[in-house]
Amino acid sequence: MRVLVLGGDGFCGWPTALHLSARGWDVTVVDNLSRRNIDNELEVSSLTPIRPIGERIAAWKEISGREIGFQNLTLGKEFDRFVALLKDEKPDAIVHFAEQRAAPYSMKSARHKLYTVDNNLNATNHVLAAMVESGLDIHLAHLGTMGVYGYATAGLTIPEGYLTVTVETDRGPVEQEILFPPNPASIYHMTKTQDALLFQFYAKNDGVRITDLHQGIVWGTQTEETRQDERLINRFDYDGDYGTVLNRFLMQAAVDHPLTVHGSGGQTRAFIHIQDTVRCIELALKNAPKQGERVKILNQMTESHRVRDLARMIAEMTGAEIANVPNPRQEADENELVVANDQFRDLGLKPITLAQGLLDEVTDVARRYADRADLSKVPCVSHWNAAREQAARDQTGARVTRLETRQAS
Amino acid sequence: MRVLVLGGDGFCGWPTALHLSARGWDVTVVDNLSRRNIDNELEVSSLTPIRPIGERIAAWKEISGREIGFQNLTLGKEFDRFVALLKDEKPDAIVHFAEQRAAPYSMKSARHKLYTVDNNLNATNHVLAAMVESGLDIHLAHLGTMGVYGYATAGLTIPEGYLTVTVETDRGPVEQEILFPPNPASIYHMTKTQDALLFQFYAKNDGVRITDLHQGIVWGTQTEETRQDERLINRFDYDGDYGTVLNRFLMQAAVDHPLTVHGSGGQTRAFIHIQDTVRCIELALKNAPKQGERVKILNQMTESHRVRDLARMIAEMTGAEIANVPNPRQEADENELVVANDQFRDLGLKPITLAQGLLDEVTDVARRYADRADLSKVPCVSHWNAAREQAARDQTGARVTRLETRQAS
Ligand SMILES: NC(=O)c1ccc[n+]([C@@H]2O[C@H](COP(=O)([O-])OP(=O)(O)OC[C@H]3O[C@@H](n4cnc5c(N)ncnc54)[C@H](O)[C@@H]3O)[C@@H](O)[C@H]2O)c1
Ligand SMILES: NC(=O)c1ccc[n+]([C@@H]2O[C@H](COP(=O)([O-])OP(=O)(O)OC[C@H]3O[C@@H](n4cnc5c(N)ncnc54)[C@H](O)[C@@H]3O)[C@@H](O)[C@H]2O)c1
Repeated sequence: MRVLVLGGDGFCGWPTALHLSARGWDVTVVDNLSRRNIDNELEVSSLTPIRPIGERIAAWKEISGREIGFQNLTLGKEFDRFVALLKDEKPDAIVHFAEQRAAPYSMKSARHKLYTVDNNLNATNHVLAAMVESGLDIHLAHLGTMGVYGYATAGLTIPEGYLTVTVETDRGPVEQEILFPPNPASIYHMTKTQDALLFQFYAKNDGVRITDLHQGIVWGTQTEETRQDERLINRFDYDGDYGTVLNRFLMQAAVDHPLTVHGSGGQTRAFIHIQDTVRCIELALKNAPKQGERVKILNQMTESHRVRDLARMIAEMTGAEIANVPNPRQEADENELVVANDQFRDLGLKPITLAQGLLDEVTDVARRYADRADLSKVPCVSHWNAAREQAARDQTGARVTRLETRQAS
Repeated sequence: MRVLVLGGDGFCGWPTALHLSARGWDVTVVDNLSRRNIDNELEVSSLTPIRPIGERIAAWKEISGREIGFQNLTLGKEFDRFVALLKDEKPDAIVHFAEQRAAPYSMKSARHKLYTVDNNLNATNHVLAAMVESGLDIHLAHLGTMGVYGYATAGLTIPEGYLTVTVETDRGPVEQEILFPPNPASIYHMTKTQDALLFQFYAKNDGVRITDLHQGIVWGTQTEETRQDERLINRFDYDGDYGTVLNRFLMQAAVDHPLTVHGSGGQTRAFIHIQDTVRCIELALKNAPKQGERVKILNQMTESHRVRDLARMIAEMTGAEIANVPNPRQEADENELVVANDQFRDLGLKPITLAQGLLDEVTDVARRYADRADLSKVPCVSHWNAAREQAARDQTGARVTRLETRQAS
């Protein structure tokens, strides 16, 4: 079986490429290395010493004996090259990770908003239009986010993509199943809700077979394969734009810095370990929808926690302090989140929990590579709007300066 | 009051610019003339002899004494120039017509799908991001379409943008008002449902004041202003891509060609006269939402008809025959459509009906300029997918040839 891994040089894409290659898939990575260029722009780099894509692929060949192909190609710009690649490779499946994926980066400035919308929507539309153009029957698995479930009403278990609602009509109440009504919290999340409309359309109009994986925040760094050699090591982002809340806490704890909780920390988030991500993707590929079926949507997450509880968990493991700082995001300070993930559980997923895996991250990753960290990059400096920026300036001017002085000393 | 009319060289935009200018608004048109370039690509032109934008504006100055500004600028590409324009002009309002607006054109080929998504989404996102970047409080009125109401359940009067639904939760049923669940019928319509998510986000995150006008098919050619001088004449599209169903019937009737009805003609569509369009826009500008208000959505249409009833109406007026041809669109052959338009009625709109206005179109436009028509351009040759294309080839090869022979003779 042949598979293209779009965005296969990234945090989720690289371990997915290795996982599938190790299990006998014929893998080609498509990536324009834009994520590495963004590291240059932000003047940060992965905490872990990731190698260039060519070296990664050569090391994998050496260790496993398996070839992974690579195409440096910008999805959303180079349509003809991508169609030609499909016709050459005739893949059975495509896994699509190739989008700008950081909410804070998408809110950093006007230019970042424009880039995120342009990159993500054109990438997804080009992939779909190219699949139709190729005339091949290919299954597309795309990575979406839990952040598309905007109207998370209290008492509602978040369903898998579709919601049953009742509508009043002149002929009495009618039940309908609709795409979960989106109410995205950032430009980045919004592009995923716009992707969902692309999927709905191409599935209906062209019979394209699509699985959309609504993924929680991915934590953990290594998988079975990336652990085999340091040249295969996976990316660990800890900066205020790309570092997820958990990674930033881990980094802060490793260098004895207080864990900076946004607002009250009452925001509830869904999580999944990177090892479970790659397993879920394999399960999704093995259980593709049939032609003519509507878009198959699965919630790819294994547990939910409030941010302040995560901070406490890590504080207890490491002895770190906790500091509350103003929230740069335009969001409610407290929310509930109960999520259905029956489909992956039914397919046999046995998750790695935070309680089991978190300590490894502290010792094997955060402490081990702590000397590579630039701590000035940990705070989130992208604000959702002018009011949030002002609030941060008013309330923390003093404290931020204090923390920075302390780090410097 | 200052207003920018984005797409102000187009079919709706030009009469809007004149209507507002005549009523004392200080108008600047922003347009990249892409619509005229598409006419070149399709090798067609407006049935009516529209003049270059410079000549139009000069003629208006001569006739009315009023100045209209013009900027040739591509929205979605030239962000900095657009921000600078906002800062210079400090408009009170922006009317946004600047999108690729033909469903058949959006389905013509892969390249047309890519262009429509890229052009429409980047244009709208650039406009919104620039408004935030400018720091000015501007009201944006955007033109959407009735085609966003996908799940038009039998018995449901299509509400104005928002739908009240009941959701079952662990704590009992909960009522929610959501954006009407989209189920768009073409790439073009899909971009409008994606625009709706952009509006929702920028209104919520940045307090941008937005009105989204869900417009029916616009018919009629002239308004009070465009009628004053032939140099001000409005565009009349009759080709298979840009010509709406009504214009293609009018054109066919004018040259004694059978009216080509797609499928059974049971598709129900909503309509509005161009004179009412420009009035509605003025009403929308005078009744802007307040800051912090959610997106204000109005249905801008005045009557609904089945396509076969329109054909009959025109056949009776003109003596034309009716011919049923296979439908190139992927859609149901029959649908109901009952639409609420209370908001514009409450604001005092007194619509021009098809029954009153259609004969003028036949005599003043279609017959008058009939010698300018290229009849080979009337049939719709853009198919929604391979199956629809094949069906058209199988079923009408013979008939299409017959009709063409007849036209030629
Ligand atoms: N990391 C998470 O916690 C998480 C959570 C939920 C969903 N996701 C989704 O999973 C996917 C992958 O996330 P990630 O963390 O691996 O991100 P990443 O930024 O590490 O990887 C994305 C990769 O795609 C490439 N890319 C981006 N745009 C491209 C384009 N136009 N053409 C070619 N290549 C392009 C980048 O160079 C990068 O290597 C994203 O779609 C993301 O939204 C991630
Ligand atoms: N005509 C209808 O029946 C109808 C019905 C419902 C909604 N609408 C909506 O109303 C709007 C106007 O429709 P129309 O019939 O006047 O279309 P049109 O094609 O005649 O006019 C659109 C104008 O926008 C310009 N334009 C397009 N993309 C641009 C860009 N990126 N930068 C600058 N200028 C750009 C074009 O050159 C053109 O002059 C569209 O958004 C359309 O979807 C129209």
